Order: sequence, then C-alpha cells, then structure tokens
Amino acid sequence: MALTKKPVKGMKDILPAEMAIRNYVCGLIRETYESFGFTQIETPCMEHIENLTSKQGGENEKLIFKILKRGEKLNLAAAASEEDLVDGGMRYDLTVPLARYYSNHTNELPSPFKALQMGNVWRADQPQRGRFRQFMQCDIDILGDPSNMAECELILAMTTLLGKLDFKDFNIRINDRRMLKAMAAYAGFEEKDYDSVFIILDKMDKIGRDGVKEELINAGYAEEVVMRYAELFEKLEGKAGDAALDTLAELMGDKLPDDCRNNLSEIFGVVNPAKTADFELVFDPTLVRGMSYYTGTIFEVELKEFNSSCGGGGRYDEMIGRFTGQNTPACGFSIGFERIITILLEKGFQVPGEAGKTAFLIEKGMDMSRQGEILKEAMSLRAAGTKVLVLKMAKNKKFQKEQLAADGYTDIKEFYKESLQGG
Amino acid sequence: MALTKKPVKGMKDILPAEMAIRNYVCGLIRETYESFGFTQIETPCMEHIENLTSKQGGENEKLIFKILKRGEKLNLAAAASEEDLVDGGMRYDLTVPLARYYSNHTNELPSPFKALQMGNVWRADQPQRGRFRQFMQCDIDILGDPSNMAECELILAMTTLLGKLDFKDFNIRINDRRMLKAMAAYAGFEEKDYDSVFIILDKMDKIGRDGVKEELINAGYAEEVVMRYAELFEKLEGKAGDAALDTLAELMGDKLPDDCRNNLSEIFGVVNPAKTADFELVFDPTLVRGMSYYTGTIFEVELKEFNSSCGGGGRYDEMIGRFTGQNTPACGFSIGFERIITILLEKGFQVPGEAGKTAFLIEKGMDMSRQGEILKEAMSLRAAGTKVLVLKMAKNKKFQKEQLAADGYTDIKEFYKESLQGG
Repeated sequence: MALTKKPVKGMKDILPAEMAIRNYVCGLIRETYESFGFTQIETPCMEHIENLTSKQGGENEKLIFKILKRGEKLNLAAAASEEDLVDGGMRYDLTVPLARYYSNHTNELPSPFKALQMGNVWRADQPQRGRFRQFMQCDIDILGDPSNMAECELILAMTTLLGKLDFKDFNIRINDRRMLKAMAAYAGFEEKDYDSVFIILDKMDKIGRDGVKEELINAGYAEEVVMRYAELFEKLEGKAGDAALDTLAELMGDKLPDDCRNNLSEIFGVVNPAKTADFELVFDPTLVRGMSYYTGTIFEVELKEFNSSCGGGGRYDEMIGRFTGQNTPACGFSIGFERIITILLEKGFQVPGEAGKTAFLIEKGMDMSRQGEILKEAMSLRAAGTKVLVLKMAKNKKFQKEQLAADGYTDIKEFYKESLQGG
Repeated sequence: MALTKKPVKGMKDILPAEMAIRNYVCGLIRETYESFGFTQIETPCMEHIENLTSKQGGENEKLIFKILKRGEKLNLAAAASEEDLVDGGMRYDLTVPLARYYSNHTNELPSPFKALQMGNVWRADQPQRGRFRQFMQCDIDILGDPSNMAECELILAMTTLLGKLDFKDFNIRINDRRMLKAMAAYAGFEEKDYDSVFIILDKMDKIGRDGVKEELINAGYAEEVVMRYAELFEKLEGKAGDAALDTLAELMGDKLPDDCRNNLSEIFGVVNPAKTADFELVFDPTLVRGMSYYTGTIFEVELKEFNSSCGGGGRYDEMIGRFTGQNTPACGFSIGFERIITILLEKGFQVPGEAGKTAFLIEKGMDMSRQGEILKEAMSLRAAGTKVLVLKMAKNKKFQKEQLAADGYTDIKEFYKESLQGG
C-alpha cells in the first residue's frame, strides 16, 4: 500500500517554531505550578476501556479512540459487537486517569496530594480550526482536601500562570453545582429535569435571558416555573460577588443552602486580597460546565480580549470513590493549552532569551584531523552555552548563509582547507 | 462494569520521585542537543496503519497497538480480517513518523535538518522487568546530509549527553551495513542469505566465535564459507580502529569497498580529537542492529559498567524516499531513555539544585481576610522562586509535620487564628 505523507485526520505535525513556544510554555507551567507545591506525575496514554466508558466523561465517551485486542484475545468470528473487539482506549482527559492513579497509589502519595499533569489526550471529534483530535492538556488537581483552600490555590496558581504569559483583564467565572441545583429547585423544576434545564441555561451567553426563557417553555416546562427561574437571573443583573449572593439569599430564603453560599463568599474573601494577576473573580450563576462528575464549585477562565474560554475546572468529590468505594474530596483545573498556543502564535510571540547561535561552515575535502580540531572548538563553545551548528560548506555559499541567517545563525565562521586561519 | 485501579498491562504510572528525575533528564537532553543545533519537533502518536506496516519496522510491526475504525467506516459484519477493522496504529518508533514528517514539510525545513524528538512509543511486547509497552524515546536525526559529518555530530552530541549524566568508561561500537555485506560476500555467502547470517552473527557476544560457526553450519551453510567468514573475525581479534581496518583491507583486497573503509576511518579521525566525554569509539565488525532500514554506518552505546546497551542508531538513506519517491540521506540516534532512568533510579540519583520548599499551615476556622493575607505572603515567596505549599493544619499536627519533612518541606510556618503573629 502506498505511504501517506499527511498526519492522520485531525492531528498535526508540530514545526520547530511552534515547538519552541510550546516548550517555553510547558516550562513556565511547570515552574509556576511547582512553586505552588504541585508535583508532576504521569499516567499511560491508554486506559482500560471500562474506565473510560463509565458514564463520567459525558459526550467525550462517544469520541474515544479504541484499541483493538491482540493475539488470541481477538476473535473476529465470535465478535458480536464493537465491545468484543477492544480492551483499551486512548484517554479523553486527564481527570479519569488521575482518579485511577490516585486510587492505585493512595498510600504512596502525600495527603492532600497536589498533582500536576501535562500530556496528550485524544478525542475523535469533527476536526475544525483550532480543534484537534490529539491535543495537550495541563491539569492541576488537589486530592484529599475537603476545604475550599483547594479552590483558592487552584485559582491563584492558574491566574499567576496566565499573568506570566502576559494575559490581562480576564475573568474567572465561578459558580457551584449545588447553587445551580438550589436555584432550579427554588423555581420549581423537578430534580430529574435539572440536566436538561442546565443545558439550556448554558446558552445564556448566546441567546440571552429571553432566549433561555423561550427554549425552556418550548421544552415543555411550566411557564410559572420558568418565569420564577428567569426572575432570579434578572434580579442578579449588575450585581457581583457578595452583593449577588446577598440578593440570592434574600430571594431564595432557606432554599439557598448556607454551605453553598459560604463557599463562594469565602473564596472571594481569600482570593481577592491574595491575587497577583490582573483578573476579576466573577460569580456567574449561569455557569454550568458540561461534565457530570462535578459536585461543588465550578469555574472557567474567560479571556475577554479574545472572547473565548481558556480552561476550567471544579470540584468532583465522588469520582475517586468509584474506584475505591470511599469518596475522596477532589478539585481540579485544566488549562486550555492549545488555545493559549494558538493565541501566542497569532500574537507573534517570541520566546525570550534565546542563547547565541553560531554556525561553522567547513569546506569539503578538508583533512580529517583538521576537521577534528574544528569540531573540538565547536564542543568548547557548546559546553559554554552557545548553540553551534556544524555544516559542510555548500556550493552556493551565499544562499546557504542567507538560509542560516533566516534561521537565527547570524554568527557564521568559515573554515577552508587551504588555510589554517579562519577559526 | 467495575472500574480497574491498575494501569493497562505493561504500562506504568509514574510517581513524583521518578517524574522529577525524568523531567531533569529531559531538560538536559533538550539543552545538550539544542547546543548542537538540533531543533525539537513532534509528530502525532498515531499514524496511518499503512505507514506502520510497510515492512520497515522489522519485528516491531508485529507489536502495533491498532486503532479501531469509527462511525460508518467500521463495518463489523462485512469485516473479513483485522485489516478491515483498523485505520491507525500507535507509533512503535520515532523514525518512521519522522520520515513522514520530513516528506510532508521538506520545503518548510532547513537543509540539512537536525531534528530532536522526545515522545512515547508503544509496542505490545511481552512485558518484563524494565521493558514497558509504553516508553519514551529521545531521537536525534540529521536529514539531508550525505557526509559523515552527520555521524560525527550524532556521536559527539549523544556522548556529551551521557557524560553530563555522569556515565563514564563506555563504548560506542560502530560498524557499517556495507561492511557487514562485504565481509559476507568475501566469505562466499549469497546475498539472499545475508539477513539470516547476520541474525546469527549478532549472537557473537553471547555464544562466541565457535558458537556462531556452529550455528551457521547447522543452518546449512557450506563449511568452507563459514570457515572463511570466521577467519576474518579471528584475524581482527585484539585490533582496533584503523589497525583493524588495515587488516581487513589486506585480507579482503578489493572485496572491501573503499568508501566503506574510508567512512569509518574518517569518523575515527574526526570524533577522537573532538570528543569530550570518557568513551572509546570501537570498530565492531559483529555489530548488526536489527532494523532493516539501515543502509550505512550503524552504532550502539555499550555501558560497560552496567553490561548493557543504552541506545543506538545509524544511517537510513532510503526511508524518506519511500514517501517522496526521491531518496534523502538520513542518519539518526535513539537514546535508551527508560534504561537511563532505571539506572539513575538504581544509583539513587538526586536531581541537583532543588529550590527551597516552605509549607504554611493554617489553623482551621481562621477568618477569610486573614487567610487572604497569608496567601498573599505565600504568593510573594512563590514569585521569588520558593515552593510554598499552603495547607490547613491537621488535627495531628506532629504527624502532618513529619510527613511534610519527609517530602522535603523542612521550613514550616504555622498560622493560628488567635494570633496575628507567626507569619
């Protein structure tokens, strides 16, 4: 069969210029998150298929790249369905593997455990501009801390990182899954309908309050319930932080659980005086976050300048329990790594502090011991921190030097066989 | 279905202590190779199945993790064989993907192109101690350079790296596929038998010269041919470098091609005066290297102290041509990353220069604005380069402090709600 030059559909080859930026950002992520006491770990890129299809990953479970069984285990003739053919799948996020990892190694890890993960994930999504089927995720998670110190530390860590990448004037939108549920209950929705209601609520940015109202009514919910729901959002308009929480408390009375209100209020109280980056922490009662595993606080980064989200996370206190039988508090944040790289590339971002670059051009036919001497000189420069590229001199030396200059090699030394000078 | 705590068979979770060493080594690899003018690139972890099964990967092609087709493309009822079910596979090395990458991006890359790749590869091998089904490879390749400056630079780069990792007194065994063929031809083997003969020759380390002779005779080759072959190796015993090449030239006359002899002689002539690490470059006429894609020089690192190989490579001038229709000279070296990590772990290697680590313990129930002040203090220390872990004080503070100390947090500050001191 003919060989194929293009990468597989939806995945990309990374060229040197982008790779340099990716490496720089990865270094900054590691350095910043480590300064908050996160330690890096890694899980395999493949997981048992049963771990990936356990109804925690929402829509992502439909997008799994599945691994064919091998050897005797593969019995094509007897296979009745896809499930009989596969035993593994590529991870679609880093959260489910982390829960497995933590349950497998609890006794070897500190408590609370602050984990940093950087790695590829795979989703067989329809490819589009900026959306790939293999992409990097960079997650921080705090496992074993029931207090909202975890939320505060996650928000401070990721906003510090965004600040170092020169992002300014962004929002961290914050909400609580319990708040979402309490508001829906107050309005009169039934618990079985919450998820469908939230899917519509999630469109608030796009279709506005009237659009949400209309969609809810069209979906068959009682007008009275929908109006009471919409009123909550109306009364919150223009109010932020504790003022918004006070308004909600007034309206909802004991339908607003204290712990849920206090949780957000405390996070505001701690993060606002401690923050160093240029952002606002914004209570957003319309923030939903798709994954069904969230149990408490949820948050999302909104880059106003680029009108886009750039990561999010939340508390998922029940996922680890699915592996161990015993719930472990957990809270995490996943940064939109590919989104950040795309923005930096569009901005024409330059990696700071590139070391000096020198090229040695050696005329063809030079005797070996002289070439050895020249390489020895290159080795000394390299040991001292200079990048040295050693090349045979091309016939078209002018063109070669132009190419080298374009690649950043402005210091070029030429070595000729006739002369012992030139070094 | 129940969830599984263990990683999939043959793959491993990486704990924080190992991860710190891996990150350190990766940093050193990048820094060292970049000083030689290599630039990092990346290809997707998945490849088109036809690229992976094109008979270039030798035994590795039997070990591919294959990706099930998705959606309409998967037709289980009509599938007659495995091939009908899959459209992709996990890469088993970084060389085949590099050849695809280079053929896809030739016009965007400098020539020669010095590529650095660091990434996972997958092989469904029988797992055993130190051998995993997902493992890191770190490759350097020089594409577009027909001269043996490429070989010299690869050898100098990887030996510099091993030197920085404190490996001493190791060998770089070197040979040339053309030399292997010339010696087999001189002895009288037929070209069609070369691969089988080389598989037996490759066992010289283990079974010795007599063992190789015996196996060749048992395999049905004429005794006269086998004896002439064995005599070559006998006459080379105790001879190194140019002396060994001179002996071969004497014995073989014009059966030893000049370019092949000169190639090795030139590499000795350049590398020996320029090298900085503590190693010997050793001509080894029994070095075979398994991959069928090699066309010229081949080499392998031998760590004498650990009695093991730790990487290897060679020239493969014909692989890129399989994608483009036009051959491009290419030479590469792949380091045994996992082997190096295993050795460093066994040596009790410590990552040098860890920054200071401080833990803040905050008593429970402290008011939020005070907590905000404490986190602000943590933020300043972090910005100045100190790792600061902020935790709620545990009930058993003594145990908590012992755990923190074991984790390197020897500087511990305690903050109590009754007092404004302690910071």
